[in-house]
Amino acid sequence: MSDKAVILLSGGLDSSTVLAVARSRGFDLHALSFSYGQKHDFELAAARRIAAAFGVREHRILTLPPDLFGDSSLVGGAAVPKDRDPLAHAGIPSTYVPARNTIFLSYALAWAEHLEAADLFIGVSAVDFSGYPDCRPEFVAAFEQLANAATRVGTELGHHITVHAPLLHLSKKETIELGMSLGVDYGLTHTCYDPAPDGAACGRCDACVLRRRGFEAAGVSDPTRYA
Amino acid sequence: MSDKAVILLSGGLDSSTVLAVARSRGFDLHALSFSYGQKHDFELAAARRIAAAFGVREHRILTLPPDLFGDSSLVGGAAVPKDRDPLAHAGIPSTYVPARNTIFLSYALAWAEHLEAADLFIGVSAVDFSGYPDCRPEFVAAFEQLANAATRVGTELGHHITVHAPLLHLSKKETIELGMSLGVDYGLTHTCYDPAPDGAACGRCDACVLRRRGFEAAGVSDPTRYA
Repeated sequence: MSDKAVILLSGGLDSSTVLAVARSRGFDLHALSFSYGQKHDFELAAARRIAAAFGVREHRILTLPPDLFGDSSLVGGAAVPKDRDPLAHAGIPSTYVPARNTIFLSYALAWAEHLEAADLFIGVSAVDFSGYPDCRPEFVAAFEQLANAATRVGTELGHHITVHAPLLHLSKKETIELGMSLGVDYGLTHTCYDPAPDGAACGRCDACVLRRRGFEAAGVSDPTRYA
Repeated sequence: MSDKAVILLSGGLDSSTVLAVARSRGFDLHALSFSYGQKHDFELAAARRIAAAFGVREHRILTLPPDLFGDSSLVGGAAVPKDRDPLAHAGIPSTYVPARNTIFLSYALAWAEHLEAADLFIGVSAVDFSGYPDCRPEFVAAFEQLANAATRVGTELGHHITVHAPLLHLSKKETIELGMSLGVDYGLTHTCYDPAPDGAACGRCDACVLRRRGFEAAGVSDPTRYA
C-alpha cells in the first residue's frame, strides 16, 4: 500500500497541527486547500506558507464554485458573530458553510483515488468547536464508510480507507500542546474569520476566541498578530 | 417539511428518467448539472433541454475544477473503450471518474441545505452498469447515512434526508419502460461517451451499447441519432 496521505489544509491552527501529525507518522504528504469565495485570502496564504514549511510533496489549491455557499457569513454578506462564548452558544452558527467538509473530503477522496492512497486527514474537533454538524465523530465515521464503498481503492484494490481526525477528541489546549511537541510554528497560521485589511486577527470572532483561549490554557505565548 | 428535491441531471437517459420520477411524486424540482472538463458539451445541452421540458423550478450548472478527474477517459486524453460487452467486462473501466458521484451528491447536499430540502435524487443503477463503485446500493446507503450526520437539515432541523435512487435495481429496459410511462422524450437526452462533432452518438461505447440494448429489449423505437 501507498504511504501517501491527503491532508485537508485550511491554513488554520487545527489543520496545520494535523499536517504535523501526518508527518510524524511518516506519510508522504499531499496537502489540499480550497478557494471557495472566502471573504479574504489570508487563510490560503497561510496554507501556502505551512505547506512550504513542512516540505509537502504537493500542495493543490482547487477553486470551487461559491454558488451554494452563499448563506454562510464566512462567504456571503452577513456579519460574522463576535464577542460571545462560542461554546455557550446553542445551535449551528451563521459561519457554518453548508456541506463544506463533505465537499472537501470528497475532493480529498478523488485525489486519494488518483494517488491510490488510503489515508485522509482532517482537522475537525468535537470539543472546542462551533457546533458544526460536519465536525463530529458521527460525520467522520460516516464519511469513512462512504469512502470505502465509493472508490476503486476501497473496493477493487481492497484497501481500507481511513479518515484520520486526530484532533476529534482534543480541546484547543491539547491541540496546541500536540502541535508544539511536533514543531508547528503557529505564527505561520491564520484562524480569524474576519481579519483586518492587513491580515491581523480581530480577536473577537468565535475562531479567534477559541484560539486565544487555547494558547492561554496551554500556557503558550500566543503568536497571533491582533488588530 | 419542504417538498423541494434536488435532482442530479447529467442529460442522459437515466437522470432524465429520474427527473420524471421526482416530478411524478410531486416534488418541487431543482436540477443540478456539472461542467467538469468533459470532452464535449452535448450532455449539458441535453440537460438544459430536459430541464426546460420538465419545467423545473431551477436548473443550476456548476463549474468544477477538472484537476482531479484527469485519469478518466471521459475527461483525459485516453480513448474510450468501444465494441465490447460492458457487462462481460470485469473490473472498473477507464471511463470511471474518481469519486465523481460522491462529489456530485455532496454539492446536491449543499444545495439541499440551502433549500432546507431533504430529498436528493440520483440515477445510478447496479444492474446494467459499467462496474463503477459509486453506482451500487452500498454507496447510496452510505451517502444517505453521511448526509444525515453532516447537515443542519439532518441534525438540528431533525429531518431525514433520503437519497432516492429509483433506478438502482432496474435494468436499462425497465428504466426505459418507466420513463416512457412518465412521458420522457428520450430524443432530448444524450448518452454517448464519444459523440461525433455534430453530437451524433458513436453507438459503440459502453454507454451507447447499454442504451441501444435497452431500447431493443423494451421494444421501443430508439430515438438516438447515430453517427
